[in-house]
Amino acid sequence: MIDFDFVSPTKIYFGNNKEELIGQICLQGGYKRVYIVIGQGSVKRNGLLARVTDSLDKEGIKYQILEGVRPNPTIDLCHKGIEEARIFAPNLILAIGGGSVIDTAKNIAVGYFYSGNSFDFNLHIAKPKKALPIGVILTIAASGSETSNSCVIQDDEKQIKMGFNDDIVRPVFAIENPKLTYSVSKVQTAYGIVDIMMHTLERYFHASSDNEPADGFAEALLKSVIKAAKVVIDNPTDYDARAVLMLMSSLSHNGLTSIGKKMLLFVHQIEHAVSGVYPEVAHAAGLAVLFPAWAKYYVNYDVDKFNKLAMNVFDLHKKDKMENAKAGIKEIEKLFDSLDMPRTFKDLGIKNVDIKRIVNIVTNNGNRVIEHPKKNMDQEVVQTIIESCL
Amino acid sequence: MIDFDFVSPTKIYFGNNKEELIGQICLQGGYKRVYIVIGQGSVKRNGLLARVTDSLDKEGIKYQILEGVRPNPTIDLCHKGIEEARIFAPNLILAIGGGSVIDTAKNIAVGYFYSGNSFDFNLHIAKPKKALPIGVILTIAASGSETSNSCVIQDDEKQIKMGFNDDIVRPVFAIENPKLTYSVSKVQTAYGIVDIMMHTLERYFHASSDNEPADGFAEALLKSVIKAAKVVIDNPTDYDARAVLMLMSSLSHNGLTSIGKKMLLFVHQIEHAVSGVYPEVAHAAGLAVLFPAWAKYYVNYDVDKFNKLAMNVFDLHKKDKMENAKAGIKEIEKLFDSLDMPRTFKDLGIKNVDIKRIVNIVTNNGNRVIEHPKKNMDQEVVQTIIESCL
Repeated sequence: MIDFDFVSPTKIYFGNNKEELIGQICLQGGYKRVYIVIGQGSVKRNGLLARVTDSLDKEGIKYQILEGVRPNPTIDLCHKGIEEARIFAPNLILAIGGGSVIDTAKNIAVGYFYSGNSFDFNLHIAKPKKALPIGVILTIAASGSETSNSCVIQDDEKQIKMGFNDDIVRPVFAIENPKLTYSVSKVQTAYGIVDIMMHTLERYFHASSDNEPADGFAEALLKSVIKAAKVVIDNPTDYDARAVLMLMSSLSHNGLTSIGKKMLLFVHQIEHAVSGVYPEVAHAAGLAVLFPAWAKYYVNYDVDKFNKLAMNVFDLHKKDKMENAKAGIKEIEKLFDSLDMPRTFKDLGIKNVDIKRIVNIVTNNGNRVIEHPKKNMDQEVVQTIIESCL
Repeated sequence: MIDFDFVSPTKIYFGNNKEELIGQICLQGGYKRVYIVIGQGSVKRNGLLARVTDSLDKEGIKYQILEGVRPNPTIDLCHKGIEEARIFAPNLILAIGGGSVIDTAKNIAVGYFYSGNSFDFNLHIAKPKKALPIGVILTIAASGSETSNSCVIQDDEKQIKMGFNDDIVRPVFAIENPKLTYSVSKVQTAYGIVDIMMHTLERYFHASSDNEPADGFAEALLKSVIKAAKVVIDNPTDYDARAVLMLMSSLSHNGLTSIGKKMLLFVHQIEHAVSGVYPEVAHAAGLAVLFPAWAKYYVNYDVDKFNKLAMNVFDLHKKDKMENAKAGIKEIEKLFDSLDMPRTFKDLGIKNVDIKRIVNIVTNNGNRVIEHPKKNMDQEVVQTIIESCL
């Protein structure tokens, strides 16, 4: 175990109809002016927004709404939100939605107190010193942004998608009603499952001691998610499966499965570059293509860890370590296939991948190497991985 | 999964020498006056207190010290602390020690704002409305009080030991340096291991769905603790084993292993009554006697869950479910034996157990039944369990 600081302060209100508590929660927290951030209108159409504003009205909470967050959320909308918020002067930013909406809320929360361009935080040029409190009403189990310290935003003009991690943007509360995710489409549900698994798997492959609690938590989380995934695809209104996915989303990215370990998401590094250059690529679709390629490369350098995954998550016990390790990767591929995930860049609709550009973004033109316990990810490694999934 | 609220806000600073950050942490948190609570002087003798006060002095933090917390901590010392604190007017209560010291700090933190007897909270006559922030420098891996919402205090006069649970007393930070536990004696280390396991096992036996993430986390935690226990008894300065025990202490009682489940610690109910009546009984020694007796009774009503434990934690796979379940309990007994734990009330030094009195305390003179998913704990059940371990 390495030295670390850990904090996951987000209060989770979990269960049916919990969104109707929003007025009371704001009242108790002293949040009398709430700046609400939503996506492209589905929460209006399905009545969720009205239930939320009813609850706020009942307690006399004032609010203003920013609409229009898209997947791979843009810095332009964050800037609009910061300007509006400075006039409205809220004491809470409330994200109603999934990762893109929450990350937009996070950028607004820190940009509110910053005189420069709030993309500076994402470019790691500036470090946030102050943030408005952030609350979440979660509508999709996926990004884990409802408890995480990360905020990933896209700059369309620069074609760069980048994230920063800072505990200052961890939401103060997250309301999680699994029934709100019943209507999430099959493909979006599948994307969520992939994202949750990736947050966990990528942490798993950092160095561990022989007795690493984080790895045990990661294995337990993965087993629960895989079991729920198999249920929910055929039965999208299975409460328990939806509940498992929702809660595991929140525990997959709050630091629990990397507690006492190093933490940097290997494949996310590549995917952010890919969907920065090709904004039409859904984040999880990119991950679904890249992770098996990454795994097939790294199994040659870290067979013991892949073998451990195969044994403890997929209950595979072939005699030959490498064979067993590869069988574990195969199980992940089979699961992704069952979720109708793409396998190649071609499946993603990209024919001529600008490999050099992606490699340069990931490695900062060759000036950055991503540390892996067995084999560092440099330009050559990133290029090989991308080439293997064209 | 059932509906729940979950919050575990404690920031953990984990690693070697982290206690030396205490001055900076207080400065950052705005804690300029700190009321320190310690036990019976070991932190003075081993130099820890001096290192802490040096760090506070360096940052100009004022402090006052309350010394003398004993195991099964008394309400009398809490009252003394409340009186002193009202004069000193701190903005942080800092516990340097283990569960007894932390629980004393918690009672002081809420009693500070309460005009009545602060044992009222423990008797569930009053509910705390306000608390001073609590910080912890942990010196023993055991109670989990450094992240929990529980506060257990003894009233010597009434011979009652009772706890209350309220999120208001969760510490704001816990500093955890595994090296501080190198000098913890063999028997105290063993008590800690038992306590951590019990916090986890007792949660485990509440009702679960087929896919209950909390149970997976509990199994992972137990496996890590058992592995570390086997190392640390022979090698008390094994950093990694001490680190595992320390971190698992904090995750065994913060709610993680009961997230989405009911939570009431069955055996703790009985043990608190026992050590209330017999204050010379160490909490974990009482648990070590009572849990196997409780398990051997309940395996007849809940064989599937005991069998799951045997399979997933002890890797036992006998064909007969009941045989396998009992083999799992045997493993726990063997582990407790290897830790030199008592097996009977006689081993605890109690010859004529006042069974009726203990039963009446646990069941509130027969007016209270402790709900168990398969067989509720009433007077008869509690009596049978106690009689089976005389």
